Amino acid sequence: MHIRKTRLLTPGPTPLYPPALHAMMGSDIHHRTEDFRNIYRAALSDLQGLMGTSNDVLILVASGSGAMESAVSNLFSRGEKVIVCSAGKFGERWVEMAKAFGLDAVVLKAEYGQAVRPEQVAGALAANPETRGVFVQASETSTGVQHDVRSMGQAVARTDAIFVVDAITGLGAMPLDIDGWGLDVVVGGSQKAFMIPPGLAFLSISPKAWKRAESATLPHYYFDLKKEKKNAALGESSWTPNTSLVIALHAALGYIKSVGMDKLIENAQFLARATRSAAAELGLELFAPESPGSSVTAIKAPAGWDSGLIVKEFRNRFGAIIANGQGSMKGKIFRIAHLGYFDFADLAAVVAELELILAANGHPVRLGAGVAAVQRSYAGAAGLKLAAEGRA
Amino acid sequence: MHIRKTRLLTPGPTPLYPPALHAMMGSDIHHRTEDFRNIYRAALSDLQGLMGTSNDVLILVASGSGAMESAVSNLFSRGEKVIVCSAGKFGERWVEMAKAFGLDAVVLKAEYGQAVRPEQVAGALAANPETRGVFVQASETSTGVQHDVRSMGQAVARTDAIFVVDAITGLGAMPLDIDGWGLDVVVGGSQKAFMIPPGLAFLSISPKAWKRAESATLPHYYFDLKKEKKNAALGESSWTPNTSLVIALHAALGYIKSVGMDKLIENAQFLARATRSAAAELGLELFAPESPGSSVTAIKAPAGWDSGLIVKEFRNRFGAIIANGQGSMKGKIFRIAHLGYFDFADLAAVVAELELILAANGHPVRLGAGVAAVQRSYAGAAGLKLAAEGRA
Repeated sequence: MHIRKTRLLTPGPTPLYPPALHAMMGSDIHHRTEDFRNIYRAALSDLQGLMGTSNDVLILVASGSGAMESAVSNLFSRGEKVIVCSAGKFGERWVEMAKAFGLDAVVLKAEYGQAVRPEQVAGALAANPETRGVFVQASETSTGVQHDVRSMGQAVARTDAIFVVDAITGLGAMPLDIDGWGLDVVVGGSQKAFMIPPGLAFLSISPKAWKRAESATLPHYYFDLKKEKKNAALGESSWTPNTSLVIALHAALGYIKSVGMDKLIENAQFLARATRSAAAELGLELFAPESPGSSVTAIKAPAGWDSGLIVKEFRNRFGAIIANGQGSMKGKIFRIAHLGYFDFADLAAVVAELELILAANGHPVRLGAGVAAVQRSYAGAAGLKLAAEGRA
Repeated sequence: MHIRKTRLLTPGPTPLYPPALHAMMGSDIHHRTEDFRNIYRAALSDLQGLMGTSNDVLILVASGSGAMESAVSNLFSRGEKVIVCSAGKFGERWVEMAKAFGLDAVVLKAEYGQAVRPEQVAGALAANPETRGVFVQASETSTGVQHDVRSMGQAVARTDAIFVVDAITGLGAMPLDIDGWGLDVVVGGSQKAFMIPPGLAFLSISPKAWKRAESATLPHYYFDLKKEKKNAALGESSWTPNTSLVIALHAALGYIKSVGMDKLIENAQFLARATRSAAAELGLELFAPESPGSSVTAIKAPAGWDSGLIVKEFRNRFGAIIANGQGSMKGKIFRIAHLGYFDFADLAAVVAELELILAANGHPVRLGAGVAAVQRSYAGAAGLKLAAEGRA
């Protein structure tokens, strides 16, 4: 009660993997040395292996939005037609980028909490045969919605368009068969399932996308993917890399390899299922019941509540940093994250805290009922047979 | 489920306060400089303030056992009579030390799980008027028992004996009025409520004890309390101090000051109450129901179980490092710690894990019932009024 540990439980930055943080202390290294090149090459190779792709993988010294921009500015030309799936704040970011660079965007907008359907993408491609690219979020972090990028990828693959997927919170939280599903560009970020602080972004780039880079004419300088590819082959970053984060990434990727990328994804899926089940037990509604993702679960505050109260109670009473809604969703929802370095204990504690917050503010709950839902999800996922119990 | 964070939840080492660990990175400092002396002086002064005593406080480069030995070797002479209260493995350590240094020990032995009663101490003092010292554990970590050092101190204060209290797990977990209760020597250690790694021990020493040091003849060299006192006045340690731990201690003491030592103790007391209440809900027996302390709670494994199974399941399934019993108690009990950097979330998660471990191994529990007991304890301690609920 008087001790409140600060716990970072947002969908980015996510909880940090301690040995990766400790590895940052080994940053007294120059980036133009073979010692550093070895680390950089290993990180690139591990990243490619964990993303499960034969496409080129690059690291940029930027946040995820920088890598998103690099896909626009390196692979397109002014006035080209693109289709943008927009189901939340990050879909809107694609729309803003397309506008900033003078692309002609057909926007497929879903209500907040809904997903853009693959049929909509197929229809828009048919109606706009000159489309050069399709942009989407694999996981729309602002609403907790997951897109069916597999079906969308099939539709895009039949055209000349390239499929550009923001998987910043998707990577490590949902299955993404980059090569099999035709995900031409996949964008990731260090502060998500990769368990380290913000500052590095990743891209995988397919041959179909690289071909586009040959003719694309939008201006760019810092985010130069061809230059970055040439340097990556030498174990180098085009500009001075944030060495501490590359060292941390290398350590975190080693841990993720030891866990297994598929297991990391299953872990997030277990936490997401358990969270949905707990919300139901506590009489709370999901914000995205139809297309719930496994990187984050958005839950509506009880009727008449400002979700900011819940976020504030988590922080002040328990030291837990939980995400509010963004933009117009602020005050309506709160979001419990699942991606990266999250475990059963994190979720059990968050749900126990949520129950107290609800009950202390007038929403009746049976104490322990949400936690029991998390425990039952755990038993299901771990294949545990539990001794007969009165259902909590 | 696939991600399992390692959580150190034993009664020592206890969970570490991260900013104190980070401060250890500032260890490129020489110990015979004014910069370090300032840190050392501040740590000594904060320690004295938090212990709430006007007695001298010293820091030794040793584990707690080293400070225990220093009290024996600096304050007694060969063949002197002492009374040793022994209620567990750490009481036995006092007995062994007394023997190793040739003291004539009257041992007041309590069964494991029981406390030595103050009347026993008073009786032994009356029967042995030549007694020069009384040794006790404020908190007997091996059994979870707490001694009534207040009443014992009153009995000792009426004699020429000095009262030597091992408060290694007592400090910060239970009220100890060192000056008011006549606790002549109080021993502490860095890896307990002080939230940093092992390696530093502390002592407070009363004028009555110092007087004894004048005539005491037992041999000692490294542990020389008079020499240490002289050096401490200069901001120095007699020997090379572990600078990294002193720096960490200074940072942790700053945090404990900001929380308040009384609040830190209340926090441990809340966690202990909540744990006892959860154990009752889950049909588990306490090992020390009569004199339960607030630094650690020892719980009996269900009948016919080896408690090692529970400890192993905590570690392998959930990454939680929980203490087994020691010596002949090994296999019979497991111990959940409360002292230092422990919070509600830690305990809620541990109890949720315990419920699953019990149910998965054939001990029927109502999932969430133990957690609900923790939640009710929290609500009681925090003065929360909860919305009407069906009792979980």
